[in-house]
Amino acid sequence: MSAVLQAPADPLADWRVAAEPYYRPVGDEVAQFQDAYALRLPLLLKGPPGCGKTRFVEHMAWTLGLPLVTVACHEDMAAGDLLGRWLIDADGTRWQDGPLSLAARHGALCYLDELIEARPDALTVLHPLADTRRVLPLERNGELLAAHPRFQLVVSYNPQPGRDLRPATRQRFVAMAFEAPPVPAQVAILVHEAGLEPEQAMRLVGLAERARALDEGAQAALSMRMLVRAGQLMAGGMQARVACELALVQAWSDQPERVQALRALADALYP
Amino acid sequence: MSAVLQAPADPLADWRVAAEPYYRPVGDEVAQFQDAYALRLPLLLKGPPGCGKTRFVEHMAWTLGLPLVTVACHEDMAAGDLLGRWLIDADGTRWQDGPLSLAARHGALCYLDELIEARPDALTVLHPLADTRRVLPLERNGELLAAHPRFQLVVSYNPQPGRDLRPATRQRFVAMAFEAPPVPAQVAILVHEAGLEPEQAMRLVGLAERARALDEGAQAALSMRMLVRAGQLMAGGMQARVACELALVQAWSDQPERVQALRALADALYP
Amino acid sequence: MSAVLQAPADPLADWRVAAEPYYRPVGDEVAQFQDAYALRLPLLLKGPPGCGKTRFVEHMAWTLGLPLVTVACHEDMAAGDLLGRWLIDADGTRWQDGPLSLAARHGALCYLDELIEARPDALTVLHPLADTRRVLPLERNGELLAAHPRFQLVVSYNPQPGRDLRPATRQRFVAMAFEAPPVPAQVAILVHEAGLEPEQAMRLVGLAERARALDEGAQAALSMRMLVRAGQLMAGGMQARVACELALVQAWSDQPERVQALRALADALYP
Amino acid sequence: MSAVLQAPADPLADWRVAAEPYYRPVGDEVAQFQDAYALRLPLLLKGPPGCGKTRFVEHMAWTLGLPLVTVACHEDMAAGDLLGRWLIDADGTRWQDGPLSLAARHGALCYLDELIEARPDALTVLHPLADTRRVLPLERNGELLAAHPRFQLVVSYNPQPGRDLRPATRQRFVAMAFEAPPVPAQVAILVHEAGLEPEQAMRLVGLAERARALDEGAQAALSMRMLVRAGQLMAGGMQARVACELALVQAWSDQPERVQALRALADALYP
Amino acid sequence: MSAVLQAPADPLADWRVAAEPYYRPVGDEVAQFQDAYALRLPLLLKGPPGCGKTRFVEHMAWTLGLPLVTVACHEDMAAGDLLGRWLIDADGTRWQDGPLSLAARHGALCYLDELIEARPDALTVLHPLADTRRVLPLERNGELLAAHPRFQLVVSYNPQPGRDLRPATRQRFVAMAFEAPPVPAQVAILVHEAGLEPEQAMRLVGLAERARALDEGAQAALSMRMLVRAGQLMAGGMQARVACELALVQAWSDQPERVQALRALADALYP
Amino acid sequence: MSAVLQAPADPLADWRVAAEPYYRPVGDEVAQFQDAYALRLPLLLKGPPGCGKTRFVEHMAWTLGLPLVTVACHEDMAAGDLLGRWLIDADGTRWQDGPLSLAARHGALCYLDELIEARPDALTVLHPLADTRRVLPLERNGELLAAHPRFQLVVSYNPQPGRDLRPATRQRFVAMAFEAPPVPAQVAILVHEAGLEPEQAMRLVGLAERARALDEGAQAALSMRMLVRAGQLMAGGMQARVACELALVQAWSDQPERVQALRALADALYP
Ligand SMILES: Nc1ncnc2c1ncn2[C@@H]1O[C@H](COP(=O)(O)OP(=O)(O)O)[C@@H](O)[C@H]1O
Ligand SMILES: Nc1ncnc2c1ncn2[C@@H]1O[C@H](COP(=O)(O)OP(=O)(O)O)[C@@H](O)[C@H]1O
Ligand SMILES: Nc1ncnc2c1ncn2[C@@H]1O[C@H](COP(=O)(O)OP(=O)(O)O)[C@@H](O)[C@H]1O
Ligand SMILES: Nc1ncnc2c1ncn2[C@@H]1O[C@H](COP(=O)(O)OP(=O)(O)O)[C@@H](O)[C@H]1O
Ligand SMILES: Nc1ncnc2c1ncn2[C@@H]1O[C@H](COP(=O)(O)OP(=O)(O)O)[C@@H](O)[C@H]1O
Ligand SMILES: Nc1ncnc2c1ncn2[C@@H]1O[C@H](COP(=O)(O)OP(=O)(O)O)[C@@H](O)[C@H]1O
Repeated sequence: MSAVLQAPADPLADWRVAAEPYYRPVGDEVAQFQDAYALRLPLLLKGPPGCGKTRFVEHMAWTLGLPLVTVACHEDMAAGDLLGRWLIDADGTRWQDGPLSLAARHGALCYLDELIEARPDALTVLHPLADTRRVLPLERNGELLAAHPRFQLVVSYNPQPGRDLRPATRQRFVAMAFEAPPVPAQVAILVHEAGLEPEQAMRLVGLAERARALDEGAQAALSMRMLVRAGQLMAGGMQARVACELALVQAWSDQPERVQALRALADALYP
Repeated sequence: MSAVLQAPADPLADWRVAAEPYYRPVGDEVAQFQDAYALRLPLLLKGPPGCGKTRFVEHMAWTLGLPLVTVACHEDMAAGDLLGRWLIDADGTRWQDGPLSLAARHGALCYLDELIEARPDALTVLHPLADTRRVLPLERNGELLAAHPRFQLVVSYNPQPGRDLRPATRQRFVAMAFEAPPVPAQVAILVHEAGLEPEQAMRLVGLAERARALDEGAQAALSMRMLVRAGQLMAGGMQARVACELALVQAWSDQPERVQALRALADALYP
Repeated sequence: MSAVLQAPADPLADWRVAAEPYYRPVGDEVAQFQDAYALRLPLLLKGPPGCGKTRFVEHMAWTLGLPLVTVACHEDMAAGDLLGRWLIDADGTRWQDGPLSLAARHGALCYLDELIEARPDALTVLHPLADTRRVLPLERNGELLAAHPRFQLVVSYNPQPGRDLRPATRQRFVAMAFEAPPVPAQVAILVHEAGLEPEQAMRLVGLAERARALDEGAQAALSMRMLVRAGQLMAGGMQARVACELALVQAWSDQPERVQALRALADALYP
Repeated sequence: MSAVLQAPADPLADWRVAAEPYYRPVGDEVAQFQDAYALRLPLLLKGPPGCGKTRFVEHMAWTLGLPLVTVACHEDMAAGDLLGRWLIDADGTRWQDGPLSLAARHGALCYLDELIEARPDALTVLHPLADTRRVLPLERNGELLAAHPRFQLVVSYNPQPGRDLRPATRQRFVAMAFEAPPVPAQVAILVHEAGLEPEQAMRLVGLAERARALDEGAQAALSMRMLVRAGQLMAGGMQARVACELALVQAWSDQPERVQALRALADALYP
Repeated sequence: MSAVLQAPADPLADWRVAAEPYYRPVGDEVAQFQDAYALRLPLLLKGPPGCGKTRFVEHMAWTLGLPLVTVACHEDMAAGDLLGRWLIDADGTRWQDGPLSLAARHGALCYLDELIEARPDALTVLHPLADTRRVLPLERNGELLAAHPRFQLVVSYNPQPGRDLRPATRQRFVAMAFEAPPVPAQVAILVHEAGLEPEQAMRLVGLAERARALDEGAQAALSMRMLVRAGQLMAGGMQARVACELALVQAWSDQPERVQALRALADALYP
Repeated sequence: MSAVLQAPADPLADWRVAAEPYYRPVGDEVAQFQDAYALRLPLLLKGPPGCGKTRFVEHMAWTLGLPLVTVACHEDMAAGDLLGRWLIDADGTRWQDGPLSLAARHGALCYLDELIEARPDALTVLHPLADTRRVLPLERNGELLAAHPRFQLVVSYNPQPGRDLRPATRQRFVAMAFEAPPVPAQVAILVHEAGLEPEQAMRLVGLAERARALDEGAQAALSMRMLVRAGQLMAGGMQARVACELALVQAWSDQPERVQALRALADALYP
């Protein structure tokens, strides 16, 4: 663990993307991201969980040669969790950058996932970084950190009725909407990610599409990620019907009616 | 206590399962767990308290040769309780892994019990560990911990109307449903765990089945665990009727009507 | 105070019960406690304040030769208050067991009074200690403490409508119900504890019985403890009517009507 | 300030009552206090602010030769504020008793004012000290403090509809009710405390009695303390009518109607 | 900054009033303050913001030759913010008095502004200081501080429906009511404070009087302080109408109707 | 990072405005700011986000030769975040000014953005600094900081129904109202800031004006900042219609109807 305690030669070493992440584009999103990055405009990705936002960001980080620092936001996240703090450790006291200041200082892509979970005030620290000033006041360190020229800010969240970012935060971002990929893309992803045969993949996508038609909750919840997991279990040798039970039916809901409805669909497709 | 203060040779020594735990399977759950483990897919066990989830996980840890690190979740649990912290102790300052980082670093089965009690934000730290990335950002330690290849994540909770995991958390798990074992299994468990004679065990299971028919609360509450306790008191020499009073009637409820109802059943079976 | 700062030879010295506590049994509770202790099953005592639960536990600790570590639960009690913490004191930093870990480590009877006042999450730490595992994870100390073979857990609370333990906590205990002792026992206790003459004691118990018939609140509140206090004042030379005013009437309520009602009874008995 | 940092020879020096406090008894309260003290029964004084409870306690402390440690309770008071804590100060770390442990350790009268303002859980620490055990568990100091034989606990509060102590706390005390002294006592107190002529004092008491008849709020609020202040201003040379305006009218209320009503009474008496 | 870190020769040096503050009396308030100070009775000043309370206190501090320690109360103010704390600074640990203990120890006038904003419990620490005892228990310092003979306590707040001090706090103060000065005084203050010509001052006061007639909110809000600011801008060369827009209209409200109403009055007086 | 840890020669070095910020005046705001600054009257800028308030302040700081210390207020901001604190860092303990004390001590323009987000109590610390006293009590440092003669305080917020500053805070400021610049100014800003051709800029402003007519939300949200971003994407080569989708449509709202309405306008203007 000594490597951790010394000032590392490359402070972003842990956050470099090691291998090219598989990403199947579903539109012009790659070019749009590049245009925004050319101007260093902060980006907001909107869409339900499991629809490929994180994978897309990983892909873009790899493509642009940027280290990727990811933060999963939550309502207990304080400004200090993003900005850093003074730590007392085995070598005495030292300033430790948080993920945001680390990325801004050394020039990484900083990706804040589920931004809407964060308390509005924790997001206020983004304001001077996300407008033309591109600075981050680190009050506890007595420092006004100017962002590295390569630094880029990307955030994402799943839009939900009744919850919104404050306008002053929101209007600092250029936004892109994501949703479940079209059926052929779903099949291709399943073949690549789960290792299913195309035909198996198509049947599974067929089940998902019917299930998503059940209700709105299903539409949001039965994500690409869940399909990939079901596919992996099948490819790993589990009986298809059982894999659906574990990865889709039980994973989807605890409510008896919803469980029944999805089970009926699964029974029909995997008799 | 000096052993505690030195870096232990085997940091998981305390958490190895010492002897094979008795577990009576009630279906295909053992094979399903193994299939999910082969792919290292995180597992969610759903079911009421005392129905055997913890015992099942102990059994699987033993079977797979994995140390078992258990965490009972509660609403005051902060992310730091899972991830670890810098401690000041008799040897100076040192980083101490939390149960989750300990298990992820050294390759244990990490079992989070009663997941639904935890605040959603404490669960957000599970996200990067529970998807294809299998990493745990330890921000306070300035470290991005890649999970050990043998590391496996299992969680459980008792589904309750009106409480649910956030979809982004939930869809990262493959799920299995548990409930009270079938009657013959209950009898077998009582014989093994409490040391009752089969006939005694059957009478006790009979009482439980009738009691569970009383109302929904009883169904959830009169668990296998309570039966085992009643059985142990009987096997230890306490009069059966008194053992029921202590381990079932009084332990079940404080409400006079419910106490009366259960008492009537006990009176009938143990006159 | 130096004795406090050194590791004491007998860490439970303070908590040994010095002399046999007077306890007048009111049923089979002594044998039932012993049966549960033989199996080390955790015990839950239910009943209103002042009805003898604490005295009973003191008695059993003396009888079983166990030191008694008592904790009065309250809603601000955190897990660390039960489990212990790292302290910085005059001798440097050292780990200090909390009452629960102290009792579990060295083999005492640990009595948690008014359990229902504690926040549910503080009680979650009891779970692995109160089932067949009998272990206490001390995360801050990096230790999985296995309970001493003689360790026993006893808890108590006063059942109140609308407040209950979580089922997962509750079903880990074998339960016994307590209430005010029968009249002859009350008299005997008053004679022994307050030093009253039997006739004086009977008159006081008579007042209490009539007062308890007033309403439910009185039934719960006019406890054995209050009678003992009234009796002590009388035995100490205070006029009986005045002793009732101080120890019963004013101590019972601030509401004018209730005060009047009880005063009328006292006036009748002690004219 | 060095005296503060060294362990003082007499830890209660600051809290000894220097001179005999003037107290005019209004009934048998002095003898009743002495009877309760003979048995070391904890005392609860009930009554509105400013009616003489604190002065009575000071008087009794002087009479019994006990140092007096007073604590004004408030809703932010934590258990540690009563029990003490480890402090880091110029001489290193040291344990510092809180007012309650100080009084219990060295044998003082501990007076908790406005007990009802404290959070119920802070009061839970009083339980073992206020029953036959007379011990105070100082968990942070790893100590079970046995109370000094001379230690006495007295608490007070102003009963208010809808607020009450928990029964488990309340029934540990013997209670005495206080209210405004009778008119002759009021006059005597004014003469002694404010230095008024008896005739001046009678006129002021007359105003107060009429004002208290206005409404219930006035009855509680126009306390002996306020009369003493008005009397002091008069005795100091301020015009009587102006002294009433400052010490009674404006001090009593901000509501125009109430101010008018009291002013009318004052105008009538001091034309 | 070294002067800060050494114990200063005169601990109240910063708080001495350097020059005689201009104050125009509006009644007998100066004599009344002096009478209360002669008896060291704590004073409560009631009135809307900006009506001259602070200036009056500054004036009295100068007149009486007392240093003035001012505290602006707020709902996050804890008892420690008034009483002091142990600090770790460059010279090691040391006790630092808070503003209240500083004033009480060395004999200053302590002025607590906007007392009603403070949490009731923070005010409880005032009780023993504000009655005949005149002591301040500094529990964290293990000290019972007796107030300096010259120490005086003054508090103020703006009475608001539905908010009140607790009676136990309130009845410890002698109270004086403040409101906007009469018109001639307003003119005189404007001439002195803003440097306006009397005629200019009278026109501005005329505007204010008409505006205060608009509604109750205006009455409270259009304070002497705002008039002084408008006057200063005019005297500094800004066009009168524009000065009113900035210092009165826009500063008064964000609501379009209120802004329009005040603007109409300003247009009429400064066409 | 050593420069951070030493007391810097020029403590405001980071906060000097490096180059003249482009600002297009829309009225007399520059002269009004200068008049208020001549008297050092605190200024309050009211207006929606993105309408140019920050840029205006940057411009004035440059014009007046003042360093600019900016603070984005949020509801978790405590008084200590403005005033400073004692820090333990690699060089030992040292006092670190917060942004407000830094600016007040050394003579900068301090700009508090989104003041209304701050908790009222955090704003109480502004009171003595924002009236004629111009002092800042730094209680934790035991210091009464007199503001530097050049120090100026400016705050801003976006007025919203139902939220207001407390009168005692508000009446300490002279206020100016901001809104979206007039159309020609918008065009000029777009040409300068985004590098658009005037004709492109006019079309974009035309779209914005029509969109702002949609509803009130749009009026507030479609700010100058968003137009500049859309213009930058266009000038960077992105197709105009796509740039509107990302920088205006998706960035504006997640609600389908609003997205449709704005999209229809964009389709009409960029067919
Ligand atoms: N367009 C895509 N290309 C490749 N994989 C995808 C794509 N969309 C979804 N996936 C799969 O779905 C999983 C979940 O996607 P992820 O990016 O983590 O979702 P989100 O960040 O939106 O919650 C990924 O691990 C990947 O297997
Ligand atoms: N299938 C089973 N095999 C063996 N023992 C069981 C089984 N189910 C329940 N038990 C018994 O019930 C007790 C409670 O089960 P446990 O696994 O702790 O429940 P849960 O984790 O669901 O709350 C166990 O200690 C064991 O004695
Ligand atoms: N069965 C009993 N035997 C002896 N004393 C008793 C008994 N029941 C109650 N008491 C008396 O009542 C008092 C209060 O009982 P305690 O055990 O403290 O009550 P609880 O713990 O239920 O609140 C004891 O101090 C004792 O004097
Ligand atoms: N019986 C009494 N004898 C002497 N002084 C009294 C008496 N009752 C009230 N006082 C006067 O009233 C003041 C307030 O009484 P205090 O004891 O502080 O009230 P409480 O504690 O009930 O709020 C005292 O300072 C004293 O001047
Ligand atoms: N009677 C007065 N004499 C002199 N100046 C006054 C008077 N009343 C108000 N002022 C002016 O009004 C301003 C605000 O008064 P201040 O005492 O700060 O108000 P408050 O403390 O009531 O909020 C002062 O700075 C001063 O210029
Ligand atoms: N009057 C103006 N002159 C120059 N640029 C302006 C003007 N008004 C707005 N802007 C542009 O709009 C952007 C947002 O303005 P800003 O001052 O940050 O808004 P606010 O502080 O009101 O939220 C600026 O970066 C700038 O490009």
